[in-house]
Amino acid sequence: MTETVITSPNREVRIGFERPFVIIGERINPTGRRILAEEMKNGDYSRVEADALAQVEAGAQMLDVNAGIPLADEPKILAEVIQLVQRVTDVPLCIDSSIIDALAAGLAVYQGRALVNSVTGEDESLERVLPLVAKHGASVVAISNDETGISQDINVRFNVAKKIVERAADHGISRDRIVVDPLVMPIGAINTAGKQVLALVSRLRNELQVNTTCGASNVSFGLPNRNGINAAFLTMAMGAGMTSAITSPLHAEVMQAVLGADVMLGHDPDCMSWIRKYREPAPEGSGARGEREGRRRRRG
Amino acid sequence: MTETVITSPNREVRIGFERPFVIIGERINPTGRRILAEEMKNGDYSRVEADALAQVEAGAQMLDVNAGIPLADEPKILAEVIQLVQRVTDVPLCIDSSIIDALAAGLAVYQGRALVNSVTGEDESLERVLPLVAKHGASVVAISNDETGISQDINVRFNVAKKIVERAADHGISRDRIVVDPLVMPIGAINTAGKQVLALVSRLRNELQVNTTCGASNVSFGLPNRNGINAAFLTMAMGAGMTSAITSPLHAEVMQAVLGADVMLGHDPDCMSWIRKYREPAPEGSGARGEREGRRRRRG
Repeated sequence: MTETVITSPNREVRIGFERPFVIIGERINPTGRRILAEEMKNGDYSRVEADALAQVEAGAQMLDVNAGIPLADEPKILAEVIQLVQRVTDVPLCIDSSIIDALAAGLAVYQGRALVNSVTGEDESLERVLPLVAKHGASVVAISNDETGISQDINVRFNVAKKIVERAADHGISRDRIVVDPLVMPIGAINTAGKQVLALVSRLRNELQVNTTCGASNVSFGLPNRNGINAAFLTMAMGAGMTSAITSPLHAEVMQAVLGADVMLGHDPDCMSWIRKYREPAPEGSGARGEREGRRRRRG
Repeated sequence: MTETVITSPNREVRIGFERPFVIIGERINPTGRRILAEEMKNGDYSRVEADALAQVEAGAQMLDVNAGIPLADEPKILAEVIQLVQRVTDVPLCIDSSIIDALAAGLAVYQGRALVNSVTGEDESLERVLPLVAKHGASVVAISNDETGISQDINVRFNVAKKIVERAADHGISRDRIVVDPLVMPIGAINTAGKQVLALVSRLRNELQVNTTCGASNVSFGLPNRNGINAAFLTMAMGAGMTSAITSPLHAEVMQAVLGADVMLGHDPDCMSWIRKYREPAPEGSGARGEREGRRRRRG
């Protein structure tokens, strides 16, 4: 049974085959959020703090932290944001950057064993990211693409993941410290994307025996009622063996799908988490109420 | 690829591995509905008619019809209700009774090839129901219990289903005319019920190569937010290979889960059904709006 252990000074999160699904909050990310990007660039982290607190309150067990802002000093901002988030919450973090110096700066200030997001199957990425992960005793998200891009053939993507696991082993990083992102394509564009990724998740779990994660909302790109598609995807992905996702815990429908799937998989003993969350239903159904609460927080 | 074909004079429904999931509306059933039972007993079928229309409008491709009322003339009522429902809708029906004379009376008046609900693995049931199914060219729901009751061991339940398929073959009923109900236990009472039934559905599909159905709402018995659990269950069951369910299409959350899972499985070409249903979202999300509509109809 593979378990990936991510820690903060006071908390330990275990991503694992027989564990409740782990939600890694995706909101602290300036990509596509103009106001947040501007604020972060100017050293104003008030919105970051609010996003951190709201996501933890909504049920995120970990938070992803990204500071990718064009023409900004990303290593400096990422390190500052990590320190801030570690002051105001105690959940372990996922340090997210495509720039090696930013990952290094983030890991240097992070207290605990982080999840590094990410390494790809590209040789340059492997050679620069893996030593850093090894040095800090961290775990790492492995994205199953390489120099040739993202293959539509899941055998190719499986083999890229396998290559990353093997290269990580050369650096003393065991497979339980690798969380593979199988890459989910928009199903509105590629109708077979769902079956593909579910089959790949199943192989990653059963053959490569690694934990998995994904940016869950990509699957619904371009479709109406995106939360409905995201909920269906996460439920089925959990059925196929996925063990974590980088997504927003502020969508009540998505959280409900994850909690419901945990119940179905026997990962919520005596259904206690489900009962605690839903035992006082609102008049029109607690899901709808939660959704409004989530949205209110998000605007705040 | 197994396909079960159920027909009415103008419609044909195919339950199949590569087809959209089939919702068989469960509402025309006096069990636990005191007012409906009283009305049906007195020959007042106005509520039956309203339930039939509302379920078809909400997306049921078939309707289950049950007239099990204590001390009533069930064969007569069932036959009358079937004739009424066939006058006001054109969907194929599932004729539901534990009384052989009622099944016979229903089949005698039914126009088309019905789904008979149900036969069990008990010898008496097999000997009485299968000849009737054969005579009318119908298909049949096979419930995987026998004289010894419902086993907690899925191997036993699988073997009961296998026995029914074999006995049906002796009557000239091929496996594509058997839709197995693997029996879903309440997950609030049996924490492993979800994993059990998902494993059984997968075996029924891959080894026995039969279609499957279930009374989907039993899984959430005793828990709060039952629609949330039912949605998670149906989504995962579809991922495991389930191809139909006897449930209420009036719950928007459940219908959304089914449509979303169809998208994920590639059974909604170009996501057209999803887009048609959700392209004009209500302010708080179309799911919530649909739920209220469903409830209003249901009270009517």
